[in-house]
Amino acid sequence: MSFSVAVAGATGYAGGEILRLLLAHPAYLSGELEIGALTGNSNAGQPVEEQMPHLPQLAGRVIEETSIAVLSGHDVVFLGLPHGFSAEIGANLPEETVAIDCAADFRLRDAEAWARYYGSKHAGHWPYGIPEMPGHREELQGAKRIAVPGCFPTGATLAALPAVKAGICEPDLRVVSITGVSGAGKKAAVPMLGAETMGSLKAYNTAGNHRHTPEIAQNLAEVTDAPVTVSFTPVLAPLPRGILTTVTAPLVEGVTSESARQAYEDFYASEPFVWVVPEGTQPQTQHVVGSNMCHVQVEVDAEAGVVLMTSAIDNLTKGTAGAAVQCMNLALGLEEAAGLPRQGVAP
Amino acid sequence: MSFSVAVAGATGYAGGEILRLLLAHPAYLSGELEIGALTGNSNAGQPVEEQMPHLPQLAGRVIEETSIAVLSGHDVVFLGLPHGFSAEIGANLPEETVAIDCAADFRLRDAEAWARYYGSKHAGHWPYGIPEMPGHREELQGAKRIAVPGCFPTGATLAALPAVKAGICEPDLRVVSITGVSGAGKKAAVPMLGAETMGSLKAYNTAGNHRHTPEIAQNLAEVTDAPVTVSFTPVLAPLPRGILTTVTAPLVEGVTSESARQAYEDFYASEPFVWVVPEGTQPQTQHVVGSNMCHVQVEVDAEAGVVLMTSAIDNLTKGTAGAAVQCMNLALGLEEAAGLPRQGVAP
Amino acid sequence: MSFSVAVAGATGYAGGEILRLLLAHPAYLSGELEIGALTGNSNAGQPVEEQMPHLPQLAGRVIEETSIAVLSGHDVVFLGLPHGFSAEIGANLPEETVAIDCAADFRLRDAEAWARYYGSKHAGHWPYGIPEMPGHREELQGAKRIAVPGCFPTGATLAALPAVKAGICEPDLRVVSITGVSGAGKKAAVPMLGAETMGSLKAYNTAGNHRHTPEIAQNLAEVTDAPVTVSFTPVLAPLPRGILTTVTAPLVEGVTSESARQAYEDFYASEPFVWVVPEGTQPQTQHVVGSNMCHVQVEVDAEAGVVLMTSAIDNLTKGTAGAAVQCMNLALGLEEAAGLPRQGVAP
Amino acid sequence: MSFSVAVAGATGYAGGEILRLLLAHPAYLSGELEIGALTGNSNAGQPVEEQMPHLPQLAGRVIEETSIAVLSGHDVVFLGLPHGFSAEIGANLPEETVAIDCAADFRLRDAEAWARYYGSKHAGHWPYGIPEMPGHREELQGAKRIAVPGCFPTGATLAALPAVKAGICEPDLRVVSITGVSGAGKKAAVPMLGAETMGSLKAYNTAGNHRHTPEIAQNLAEVTDAPVTVSFTPVLAPLPRGILTTVTAPLVEGVTSESARQAYEDFYASEPFVWVVPEGTQPQTQHVVGSNMCHVQVEVDAEAGVVLMTSAIDNLTKGTAGAAVQCMNLALGLEEAAGLPRQGVAP
Repeated sequence: MSFSVAVAGATGYAGGEILRLLLAHPAYLSGELEIGALTGNSNAGQPVEEQMPHLPQLAGRVIEETSIAVLSGHDVVFLGLPHGFSAEIGANLPEETVAIDCAADFRLRDAEAWARYYGSKHAGHWPYGIPEMPGHREELQGAKRIAVPGCFPTGATLAALPAVKAGICEPDLRVVSITGVSGAGKKAAVPMLGAETMGSLKAYNTAGNHRHTPEIAQNLAEVTDAPVTVSFTPVLAPLPRGILTTVTAPLVEGVTSESARQAYEDFYASEPFVWVVPEGTQPQTQHVVGSNMCHVQVEVDAEAGVVLMTSAIDNLTKGTAGAAVQCMNLALGLEEAAGLPRQGVAP
Repeated sequence: MSFSVAVAGATGYAGGEILRLLLAHPAYLSGELEIGALTGNSNAGQPVEEQMPHLPQLAGRVIEETSIAVLSGHDVVFLGLPHGFSAEIGANLPEETVAIDCAADFRLRDAEAWARYYGSKHAGHWPYGIPEMPGHREELQGAKRIAVPGCFPTGATLAALPAVKAGICEPDLRVVSITGVSGAGKKAAVPMLGAETMGSLKAYNTAGNHRHTPEIAQNLAEVTDAPVTVSFTPVLAPLPRGILTTVTAPLVEGVTSESARQAYEDFYASEPFVWVVPEGTQPQTQHVVGSNMCHVQVEVDAEAGVVLMTSAIDNLTKGTAGAAVQCMNLALGLEEAAGLPRQGVAP
Repeated sequence: MSFSVAVAGATGYAGGEILRLLLAHPAYLSGELEIGALTGNSNAGQPVEEQMPHLPQLAGRVIEETSIAVLSGHDVVFLGLPHGFSAEIGANLPEETVAIDCAADFRLRDAEAWARYYGSKHAGHWPYGIPEMPGHREELQGAKRIAVPGCFPTGATLAALPAVKAGICEPDLRVVSITGVSGAGKKAAVPMLGAETMGSLKAYNTAGNHRHTPEIAQNLAEVTDAPVTVSFTPVLAPLPRGILTTVTAPLVEGVTSESARQAYEDFYASEPFVWVVPEGTQPQTQHVVGSNMCHVQVEVDAEAGVVLMTSAIDNLTKGTAGAAVQCMNLALGLEEAAGLPRQGVAP
Repeated sequence: MSFSVAVAGATGYAGGEILRLLLAHPAYLSGELEIGALTGNSNAGQPVEEQMPHLPQLAGRVIEETSIAVLSGHDVVFLGLPHGFSAEIGANLPEETVAIDCAADFRLRDAEAWARYYGSKHAGHWPYGIPEMPGHREELQGAKRIAVPGCFPTGATLAALPAVKAGICEPDLRVVSITGVSGAGKKAAVPMLGAETMGSLKAYNTAGNHRHTPEIAQNLAEVTDAPVTVSFTPVLAPLPRGILTTVTAPLVEGVTSESARQAYEDFYASEPFVWVVPEGTQPQTQHVVGSNMCHVQVEVDAEAGVVLMTSAIDNLTKGTAGAAVQCMNLALGLEEAAGLPRQGVAP
């Protein structure tokens, strides 16, 4: 089997991370996977080695203009474009092309939620790329269109899913997700300057205003019949990569730390990319940097009457590009874990 | 009026910050405040300029051994010692000495809570140094013994107090507090190394295990008759100074963002060191670095049915040393705000 | 004496730091110094509390458009504008106004060097604001026009001046200056994003291409008759504030660490803002954050035949705004050190 | 071919990084390379998943006590021990074992330099693990004992070697190397705390006092007959990983930027792990994080009469563990680049 891959929006952080992973993918190393067009917008015509010096293997290539013509003819197209651009490209790519969208365009099922949070016409819904969610792995196998989840929804979903599914807690969740700065993308903006973000912490898009709120709710609603409530508070912190998510929810009577932990170990027993960290320890983002892992922990605070669920991911890897490659593997029938590191770049 | 001040544990982060503030205090600049003994333990005998090069004005002094003999004879003694040491020193200092304890020894009223969280004999309870809490300013005026609050309780209390008092939310609080690394003190420990903390986030002492949990509950219980529940999750983040606290609690029916905001503006109208940040913005720790300010915000998330309360403080200033100096000012009858910056060192 | 101060470019980092210092200046606290117009360009019309939340004392004010009309009528005008704008404003302000320019427009004496490095017409030369340079303090006293030095030249000059003057080393200097990110100003630019700068180091404007190169050479040439050579390598590092400068130069025979140190202690004996750190220690930028200090050290490496001179400053304080306020004090006949902290915000 | 590998000092930063690389090594993935004993000292008996949560594949293993008995019987033994321990272990391991030492014990040829900088008996000299140095690759092929270079010498040598060899500059070098904090190892120490290192820069072990000084000189002396002088100034900066090295040296007459650049491109033309970055750009440490690459640049500053040579490496990868694995590949006759990423984890 031999296949070619294009990356639209290659010089963005998602695009660059997809390329970083592909360059170590066994299919690339064996020559089956060919890296084809790398496209951009304002960077079109630029040498790749100046745009992505961290990928010296790609020196000599040139960024092409993003267009259907350039992208067509590849077996797989990763879309790392700003929200709103994928809908059109996705609609015009050949049906047999595997299109994997890292933007939000095709994540939400509910057109109304889309309209409210994104303010534009709903483009539809594609198979959703968290293979660890019940039924999703099967749906992703052989899929031709895939919506890669948002980074916050990945962290929150993997933290809370087993508890909500097993009825350990009531599905009335308070999610506080602390993220590194690469989540904001490679766009020039004063609030994202190093001088504004180093040595500082701030919450933003609070009180129901973050676009990932309905996506988190949508995911958890898949595993419970009870109505799901999500209060979501994202916080920006001074690190390049990583999301630490804390979720609290009302404890269901009779649940203990032991039974909660057992539910998580059972749920994730055969998952290659989710690790329930040892009892008494907590996930740490450093341990998953550059890896496709999600580290999770669950604890019961009986006195406060809550379950505490935490997770750590690298927002660019398991949170975006790693998930995208994992989905590609499933779509193409490759080994799901191929090319996806479980080891983190720590310290 | 002329008075002398000693700092026990001067080379620790709390001690150093107290000295940084005292050196700019108008009473020091006018010659009324004399900086007396600076004491330590393992550092005794060391030149101050090697221990605290950020305070070159103190070059030439030497750290003395902490003892009652050395500390007695000062009008004010700041205690910046590890938990457990202040009880004895506090008991043996002359009654007329103003003793201001930055440790936990005298913070909790409840001997049982003390025993459970600190595992030793309860030393008692001193006037508690958050002047912004109803009745506390009065108690602190002229006090001879003062317990400076913990840094997390300061952030959480100032964030949630007006809401709990005004009945905007139910007193069932989920507190997630994200802190810089200086909160752990100047003790050598592998998990606090730069290489372990930079580029990383982790929760710790979770699920009711952090000692500041009962202190937060104690504070909020002072302003409500309803039973207070606190779920507390501290998170370590890669910045030197600063705590961002997010508190969520069930919204009481009928409360709006406007009424919530009004309650906060009313509550803090005459406070010099609490600022309700402009509507639509969020507190940011960078803005309070080195200052004695607490920036707060309150928002209603009607869909999730929660009130979101946030605050930003510098853990070493308003969170410890600034509060200590504010208490000294009250104890001595000086202007409460003397020597305490409202401007932050940003960026 | 009562005087009013305007700040042009108030929302930039230099402008904000000037305001932070003025708000703690004894003349402001006593009511003599009135903070007048705060002007900007793209931010004109914006509320100050949204632009500078770290200065809550200024809440309620509005940024005005920068113009001669708005700035005239103040006794002191600080210019925190991009290079090239001060020349015109400086030429049109009333002669009796004290104009203190934080840009480069009036720093260089040599019109040719100006043309080569800045590519525009030379505006002239104003008294240069390093009072620690021989003869400069006298020139600054009562001056009506002052050019505040660049941040790198301040660090390099204070590190090397005593050695060059005393003939300890040959004036053939290799300067490597490592700077925090605020030095690049508050302009949106991809290379200055948090994600690009955190966790990274890079040299830039190397091999004689940085505009501060001729300014360093100009300063050192004032204290030696020998021709001065400067190789200057600036490096960007992941911290908000601070410049660490290392200078090496060929050792003059017979010079020892002791004689070198003595020369520095003599040179800076009466300077309030330069501290020769204890023997065996090195300056650390953390110790000078937010302060107007420059910490320096000199050492002899006999085997390599070089003198190593190092300095640490806060690029926004002694490197810009602190120097500007120090110059204001001299220009107005106030105490030179008024309002300028010697204590650093560490850790 | 099948072989087993032990790592002594496995829980240190060098040991952890060796394991991170081995887990992605094609020989490990194919089953040829077996990871055997992981040993430690104070951590002996501890579960690996608590000591190295970033390597979840190793969960279930236990750290063993470092001893000849435990290490013997492996085909390859990596020594990640503090300086001074390897000498004894190296002497007692079977001759046919490939011993790869990450400490300094066997790096220096000159017993006198060893005595002066390390203060103990010289253990001798092993083949030195910079394959890019002339003759070294050949020496490393099939070697049974290998000394992995220090991280600073790697950065400085790769930056300056082509220039010294080609006679572009005089071998009178001023080296300033700026390093991340992991270089200090995983030892509890107050000066390496996050609170002491974040937001700060300082030089240390200056003026000829750093142990890597003679190692840099030794390397460069291999390619020139002229006497080599090295002034070395290491600087600590707030990032976890990465070393940026700047080297300046007197320009030899007639050399231009073009000829200098050509010399570098020629010298490194067939090297897989050294990349001369595009003209007009500078190496950036972020681009090599987690990779085995060294990015270099050379520029001529004709006015100052110096050549500027810069390099960026990850101190833990190309600076230590990557070099160690590269040496293992050579020693065992595997493909030299096997398992060594060229792509960096950026941003």
